[in-house]
Amino acid sequence: MSLVIVGSIAFDTIESPAGKVVDALGGSAVYGSLSASHFTDVRIVGVVGTDFPNSAIDLLKSRNICVNGLEVVEGKTFRWSGVYENFNQAQTLFTELNVFADFEPKLPTSCSSCHTLFLANIHPDLQHKVLDDVKQYSLVACDTMNYWITLCPDRLRELIQRVDILFINEDEIRQLTGIRDIFAAARSIHDMGVKLVVIKRGEYGSVTVSRDSFYFAPAYPIPQVKDTTGAGDSFAGGFLGYLTEVGSLDDEHIRKAVLYGTVMAALDVSEFSVDALAKTDRATIDEMLGNLKQWTC
Amino acid sequence: MSLVIVGSIAFDTIESPAGKVVDALGGSAVYGSLSASHFTDVRIVGVVGTDFPNSAIDLLKSRNICVNGLEVVEGKTFRWSGVYENFNQAQTLFTELNVFADFEPKLPTSCSSCHTLFLANIHPDLQHKVLDDVKQYSLVACDTMNYWITLCPDRLRELIQRVDILFINEDEIRQLTGIRDIFAAARSIHDMGVKLVVIKRGEYGSVTVSRDSFYFAPAYPIPQVKDTTGAGDSFAGGFLGYLTEVGSLDDEHIRKAVLYGTVMAALDVSEFSVDALAKTDRATIDEMLGNLKQWTC
Repeated sequence: MSLVIVGSIAFDTIESPAGKVVDALGGSAVYGSLSASHFTDVRIVGVVGTDFPNSAIDLLKSRNICVNGLEVVEGKTFRWSGVYENFNQAQTLFTELNVFADFEPKLPTSCSSCHTLFLANIHPDLQHKVLDDVKQYSLVACDTMNYWITLCPDRLRELIQRVDILFINEDEIRQLTGIRDIFAAARSIHDMGVKLVVIKRGEYGSVTVSRDSFYFAPAYPIPQVKDTTGAGDSFAGGFLGYLTEVGSLDDEHIRKAVLYGTVMAALDVSEFSVDALAKTDRATIDEMLGNLKQWTC
Repeated sequence: MSLVIVGSIAFDTIESPAGKVVDALGGSAVYGSLSASHFTDVRIVGVVGTDFPNSAIDLLKSRNICVNGLEVVEGKTFRWSGVYENFNQAQTLFTELNVFADFEPKLPTSCSSCHTLFLANIHPDLQHKVLDDVKQYSLVACDTMNYWITLCPDRLRELIQRVDILFINEDEIRQLTGIRDIFAAARSIHDMGVKLVVIKRGEYGSVTVSRDSFYFAPAYPIPQVKDTTGAGDSFAGGFLGYLTEVGSLDDEHIRKAVLYGTVMAALDVSEFSVDALAKTDRATIDEMLGNLKQWTC
């Protein structure tokens, strides 16, 4: 089973109460892929500039991530900089799209019919384009953000009608649906054809809403949060990586996917950039999953 | 096994997006007692005015709550009025202390050595006085609020050193300890001798922190929240009512106490005043507990 992840690849300059990193590896596709790589075979699709170092490609390869979908274009890689005063919301200092400005996702033929497709957070038009080009995915998931909900809500709604799983923050689902109660909001997303609505609640964890059940999980308590960039992507990576490997949306597997997503998000925020996602191993992840199950009533 | 609850008895006038009630039965001791009465033998201690109607006393009695500790004093019963624009925090419109202004809790001799004592939210001086007067409780718990943390933090800290279980909101534990991370804040409360720190997180549920574990629970999803007054008292009532009945602080029982507290808080907020707490039955409560367990990953 394979998971294809299409999204941004970036260098992030981040300042938080825990310190600062400059031009650290980031982007939704990178966070998602490194997280998912602990569970299944992952193929990353995105664009980088000629400044993208071999060390970063080697890092992805070291996690057995297929980089055939990594397009290298003359110019500089996408750059983002943000500062966290608290960890709920970053304040963006600058965004340099660079080669990402003209990104048109092209999937290698090896990626045209894998098991799961994850459209990580990019412009809904690009997410549509990927879906137009591919066939035969058992499971399609997408993430988004408030920026696209404000800019092109109708295009985003059209996209949501084409996916099985939607990852979204609680503020975002309220903004998208105009419904304050998140459970009623999730039902309105089910009515668009989506099977699972994964609502992320930051430090309070998440609730995944299926047509006939809820799956609540707290955030895994971390002694020192350093950098919450990529937490949602890491959650989605763990969630989808596990579901891809088991090839099922049974109750038991959704439950475990939520827990793995929670653990991967916790690992992500415990270090800057992708440091913890790259270094951890399945034994550590499974031990954390065991703890989390024990701490949940 | 018996649970003694000392706290306020009030008439509340409440307006929320779901409607309005005038002079409806309320107060921390009333919410806590009605909630706990579904689990154990409850004795309420508090003061009311001569305007307190027999119908309210009959309601307490109908739930087998012992009212020997209910002191009737010439004058009017405590009154509070608040408006909820959203359900996170009420805006107080007026507070009339009335007979509550000179309240000095007096425990009937039948209450001097029961199993559990719950000092619901009142002035820490009064909570101290009750503790000075009683002996031989196996379990002592207290609740408090931001008002007392601001007014008399030292007196409150002295009180906390005398209890086994502290119920507190997440904002309040940060204010009380000066520590932003709620888990580190809970550890500093353990260092004061407390066994269980129950941190309430509103619509996100709760986390109970013991010296060697966490117990997370989400809030039970309710189709329409009407009135969140008394949610914390109802949580504490269910939590302590169950623990009193089983007479144990074992892991398994703490877990179930958290779930019962969560269910009772959900019932409370589903109707105005104490309507749902008074009307529900153990079968309904146990069915909700079953749902909650199933919805938790």
